[in-house]
Amino acid sequence: MSGSSIGKIFKVTTFGESHGAAVGVIVDGVTPGVELCENDVQKELDRRKPGQSSVTTQRKESDTVHFLSGVFEGKTTGTPLAMIIYNADQRSKDYDNIKDLFRPGHADYTYLHKYGIRDYRGSGRASGRETAGRVAAGAVASKILAAKGINITAYTLQIGKIRCKQYKPECIDQNIVRACDPDAAPAMIKLIEQRAAENNSTGGIVECRINGVPAGTGEPVFDKLDAELAKAIVSLGGVKGIEFGAGFAAVEMSGSEHNDEMTPDGFASNNAGGIIGGISTGNEIILRAAIKPTSSISRKQQTVNIANAPVVCETHGRHDPCLCPRIVPVVEAMCAITVLDMLKQQAAMLA
Amino acid sequence: MSGSSIGKIFKVTTFGESHGAAVGVIVDGVTPGVELCENDVQKELDRRKPGQSSVTTQRKESDTVHFLSGVFEGKTTGTPLAMIIYNADQRSKDYDNIKDLFRPGHADYTYLHKYGIRDYRGSGRASGRETAGRVAAGAVASKILAAKGINITAYTLQIGKIRCKQYKPECIDQNIVRACDPDAAPAMIKLIEQRAAENNSTGGIVECRINGVPAGTGEPVFDKLDAELAKAIVSLGGVKGIEFGAGFAAVEMSGSEHNDEMTPDGFASNNAGGIIGGISTGNEIILRAAIKPTSSISRKQQTVNIANAPVVCETHGRHDPCLCPRIVPVVEAMCAITVLDMLKQQAAMLA
Amino acid sequence: MSGSSIGKIFKVTTFGESHGAAVGVIVDGVTPGVELCENDVQKELDRRKPGQSSVTTQRKESDTVHFLSGVFEGKTTGTPLAMIIYNADQRSKDYDNIKDLFRPGHADYTYLHKYGIRDYRGSGRASGRETAGRVAAGAVASKILAAKGINITAYTLQIGKIRCKQYKPECIDQNIVRACDPDAAPAMIKLIEQRAAENNSTGGIVECRINGVPAGTGEPVFDKLDAELAKAIVSLGGVKGIEFGAGFAAVEMSGSEHNDEMTPDGFASNNAGGIIGGISTGNEIILRAAIKPTSSISRKQQTVNIANAPVVCETHGRHDPCLCPRIVPVVEAMCAITVLDMLKQQAAMLA
Amino acid sequence: MSGSSIGKIFKVTTFGESHGAAVGVIVDGVTPGVELCENDVQKELDRRKPGQSSVTTQRKESDTVHFLSGVFEGKTTGTPLAMIIYNADQRSKDYDNIKDLFRPGHADYTYLHKYGIRDYRGSGRASGRETAGRVAAGAVASKILAAKGINITAYTLQIGKIRCKQYKPECIDQNIVRACDPDAAPAMIKLIEQRAAENNSTGGIVECRINGVPAGTGEPVFDKLDAELAKAIVSLGGVKGIEFGAGFAAVEMSGSEHNDEMTPDGFASNNAGGIIGGISTGNEIILRAAIKPTSSISRKQQTVNIANAPVVCETHGRHDPCLCPRIVPVVEAMCAITVLDMLKQQAAMLA
Repeated sequence: MSGSSIGKIFKVTTFGESHGAAVGVIVDGVTPGVELCENDVQKELDRRKPGQSSVTTQRKESDTVHFLSGVFEGKTTGTPLAMIIYNADQRSKDYDNIKDLFRPGHADYTYLHKYGIRDYRGSGRASGRETAGRVAAGAVASKILAAKGINITAYTLQIGKIRCKQYKPECIDQNIVRACDPDAAPAMIKLIEQRAAENNSTGGIVECRINGVPAGTGEPVFDKLDAELAKAIVSLGGVKGIEFGAGFAAVEMSGSEHNDEMTPDGFASNNAGGIIGGISTGNEIILRAAIKPTSSISRKQQTVNIANAPVVCETHGRHDPCLCPRIVPVVEAMCAITVLDMLKQQAAMLA
Repeated sequence: MSGSSIGKIFKVTTFGESHGAAVGVIVDGVTPGVELCENDVQKELDRRKPGQSSVTTQRKESDTVHFLSGVFEGKTTGTPLAMIIYNADQRSKDYDNIKDLFRPGHADYTYLHKYGIRDYRGSGRASGRETAGRVAAGAVASKILAAKGINITAYTLQIGKIRCKQYKPECIDQNIVRACDPDAAPAMIKLIEQRAAENNSTGGIVECRINGVPAGTGEPVFDKLDAELAKAIVSLGGVKGIEFGAGFAAVEMSGSEHNDEMTPDGFASNNAGGIIGGISTGNEIILRAAIKPTSSISRKQQTVNIANAPVVCETHGRHDPCLCPRIVPVVEAMCAITVLDMLKQQAAMLA
Repeated sequence: MSGSSIGKIFKVTTFGESHGAAVGVIVDGVTPGVELCENDVQKELDRRKPGQSSVTTQRKESDTVHFLSGVFEGKTTGTPLAMIIYNADQRSKDYDNIKDLFRPGHADYTYLHKYGIRDYRGSGRASGRETAGRVAAGAVASKILAAKGINITAYTLQIGKIRCKQYKPECIDQNIVRACDPDAAPAMIKLIEQRAAENNSTGGIVECRINGVPAGTGEPVFDKLDAELAKAIVSLGGVKGIEFGAGFAAVEMSGSEHNDEMTPDGFASNNAGGIIGGISTGNEIILRAAIKPTSSISRKQQTVNIANAPVVCETHGRHDPCLCPRIVPVVEAMCAITVLDMLKQQAAMLA
Repeated sequence: MSGSSIGKIFKVTTFGESHGAAVGVIVDGVTPGVELCENDVQKELDRRKPGQSSVTTQRKESDTVHFLSGVFEGKTTGTPLAMIIYNADQRSKDYDNIKDLFRPGHADYTYLHKYGIRDYRGSGRASGRETAGRVAAGAVASKILAAKGINITAYTLQIGKIRCKQYKPECIDQNIVRACDPDAAPAMIKLIEQRAAENNSTGGIVECRINGVPAGTGEPVFDKLDAELAKAIVSLGGVKGIEFGAGFAAVEMSGSEHNDEMTPDGFASNNAGGIIGGISTGNEIILRAAIKPTSSISRKQQTVNIANAPVVCETHGRHDPCLCPRIVPVVEAMCAITVLDMLKQQAAMLA
């Protein structure tokens, strides 16, 4: 109900603030008997953690995961899998300069209006740090999906106006911006570095491909597979839009262009993006998320304080000049959680 | 669970197939004591019903709503409000020509893979006719919201490449395409008629503005207000994408351009689209949905039958050459259901 | 959320007031491809309907069910199954005598405090008539369960102080009180008739046995199989208590008496009632519900009106002098809904 | 879904095995701005912890709670409150003697059939230790309820055949069996000690009274207040039955005896136990839970091993000879969680 859980059967609940004792996640509904160790999760957390490269924040957190329950003798037991990441880098920053004002682009203002109280340290619960729990849960889901032949690959498709022109999945983790086109990556990196030097930030697009989902997965009507994926992806802090298959390009197409004709060998095209009527076609599922430029920038900005008086906000810190490289594993995690949950719903329906 | 319900407190469950006895909806969690009559609902159904104008399907259904429960002496009682629309125009079409093949762009193939059985008459449950129940529920939500000063207005923003250049809300229901720009409407209508004449269809964009939502509405993390709206809107059959505020345009912006600065008089801009960190800012909430061209076109298309043999699909019927005009009230309905539910969640959290 | 739905996958939503247009139910999550006709449901409704015998109310309602959706060519499609029962016997009783007062034992007072408004005609939503929808949904669940070898049998175990001494399932539907002991039935009937003659009513116990549930069914911790059954049964209007296996008798037992020892042929006893740790043992599941004496009695009773002034309440009508005979099929229905839902949850967990 | 969460708005998720790293709980939906410190929770955990007195297990665990999130500067923030209790007394017992057999009365057999794998150390997830998380969540709920004038008091009503004859709430925590009748406590204690000396155990009844719940609280139909309380209480490991108000005694009553007449000063009696039609009357809510004798007894018992061969089970350990004294705070916790959640649902419905 209260926002911190997702999934109906493979059920993920995160907790934790950026500068509290820990962040973490409880995953209930894990398939029992799956071999799982902390390293299966750690390797995904390492793709999300800060301080990885010159295009991410220079803040350092080891983001070491600990299992508290749900695994016995190296296998999942089907009981809740609790995973915790203690907050190591709680440097005693002085947050006094932001505690009484609302940073533009941040959730400071909205949290205070919702709750009447807020933990202002490092954005508190609204910090991107919350996604560490999502990545941990997603790593578990991905491992279960992989055994079913389902693979999920996200990557940076575009930074600013620079867009990938080819899809080379093997190159994604070989460039620090996680672009699918090695030829586009250098320009993307250069743009990010330029924006960083200007104390500014840039937006981008992350694309995700899901292969191996059997045709017939997804619920109709409200809980359509694409509707659930849309919710899962838009629930990420920096996402301002999502599209499937042809997406917004479908607006200018005619029906005869957009409809995917079928042949005995399968669909002749994939404008649908692998989902029709909310249910998978068996084709590759493809979606794109619009990522806004990072709100945290080291520039003077006009804002107000909690007394609604005008003030200049100027924060200095170690921010990501572009969210894309680090959001890539988070997008994969949200897709994995969603797809596994819908596969389990399908099994339930048929039982 | 099984897809046909949405909302946690204001809970909407639809039922019915296109050519069954009836379609309808149960709304549980209705605020008690609200004056409500069938006409409150009928007037919204009339905006969605087929046969309204030259740019919609010529099929005629009166779509008359009947209340079965939940209203007593003209007021809601807080118990489930059941509303039913009997299917009048069940003309004894011969569906034999489509029962064994999969129409391109339709959910025929995916439903059969999911359920192993399908009601092939007029797309069955996957028909756009299911949305009549949504509109009925939305009409109830809208009435409750209006009493709180919250108003929701959707309209056609774009058809094919033709985009509105001005926002004149008073004109929306004065042109048959429901465009917000009366100057753009004639060209839009002409484009739709041209596509119809070619036995083809066109896509478009529907935009929606929600005003009056108090700052602080929405749950954080997974059930963000924008995430729930994304799910609600993408759950509509023809929607291939959604964006909020600056949306995909944010990709090419810098942080200093995108961040909405604040002044004592409010936000200086609204790139966020009225939602930050998943919680409303108090600003206008603005979203856009990409609508695909109608899948039903009276053209020969290549497909396969249930034996996976190649066949030519050629259907003739009375289809909408563009979904936008009739999806406008459905988008409003989904927004109303979502916003009211989140307002109720907020009240619960604070209680 | 709002009370009118139960089940997570096999999801049942009822609607309707006693004297509104209709009562009914939507069942979402029905296994597709199951042969189902209205008569499968009608025969269970006939066991619940009023006017069956001299020990039930003499009010007559045919309680004829109509399918509105979810069945195609004699089989379930997996889409919502809507079932409706129009209210035939809306005799134009004058309810003016009760509209402004609170009948003792009835939900008049509590509904008004909850909602601020109530449909006072025949108890409105709080009427036992709401259970017709439950029985309809349960009939569907029972049919699906029967194909899995799972059978559910409820019966009257006790009326007043008269308790069955033997279990003869074949006799249950052969006596009008639905007792499992044909020797006890005549005394039970006599007691009920005596109470009726006194314008009074009597309580009783309904017992239910569920056979064939495979070991390992049920969720641990909060959603234990017995916890879900307890909720389902206590959600029936007249139920004041529930116990499993040895139940309240376990209070006076020692551990060595109560523990069910195991042998290679199975459990040596069944004090657990077929559920340990919230999960089925494979043994017969056995539960008992305490049924209060009917609140509707044609006697003068002291109460207050809505102005909190003392008044004498005297209602005359055609009431059940004992709820047990007609609640038997409702108890079976609730057990069937619950067990089927938990089987589906188990399939999901393992998927 | 998967069993480890309860509550729709005040949502409680527990995790942890008896001999894993920790047990704990996430509470989402906490009212923000409530003063809360670890000691508020610790004092309730101390009432549940082992080793308190001569009638509980002599096993010692300090059960020290740590807050990980959701509290800032001494107040709740409305974000998930994560509370963790590290398992201190993981003595390197040899569990080899039970890992391959099924202890009578325990969930060993059912867990293995459900999951195909089980953590056999100290009953794993099925251990009563899981309830520490419930008590922690309940302490938070109780504090919020107390501020609304709602108080919950549970106590031992009966041990074996010895039943309290008076209700003296001030005496409950002054005797080690937590009886409400100081005159009955010595005989209860003597009975427990006698059973312990015989390597046996005894059952009992825990009664709970909830005062101050405003009339009109609770959802009708399936989510009735008593139905939700029944689920919450039966979800406790040792509970075999529950009753409200007159409970099973209503079976032998007539309607004129059972109906609670009303006067301008309130209800003249409380056979309903404070709930009619699933909604609170404003009267004291009263319920009783039947507690089975502890399954863990140091006696030879017949059972089978995982190969279904007969074996003698003989465990020695430090067990509670009666569950009642320690289950009292757990019953209070479950009632507090349930009542607070329903109050929040009521606020949502009216919003």
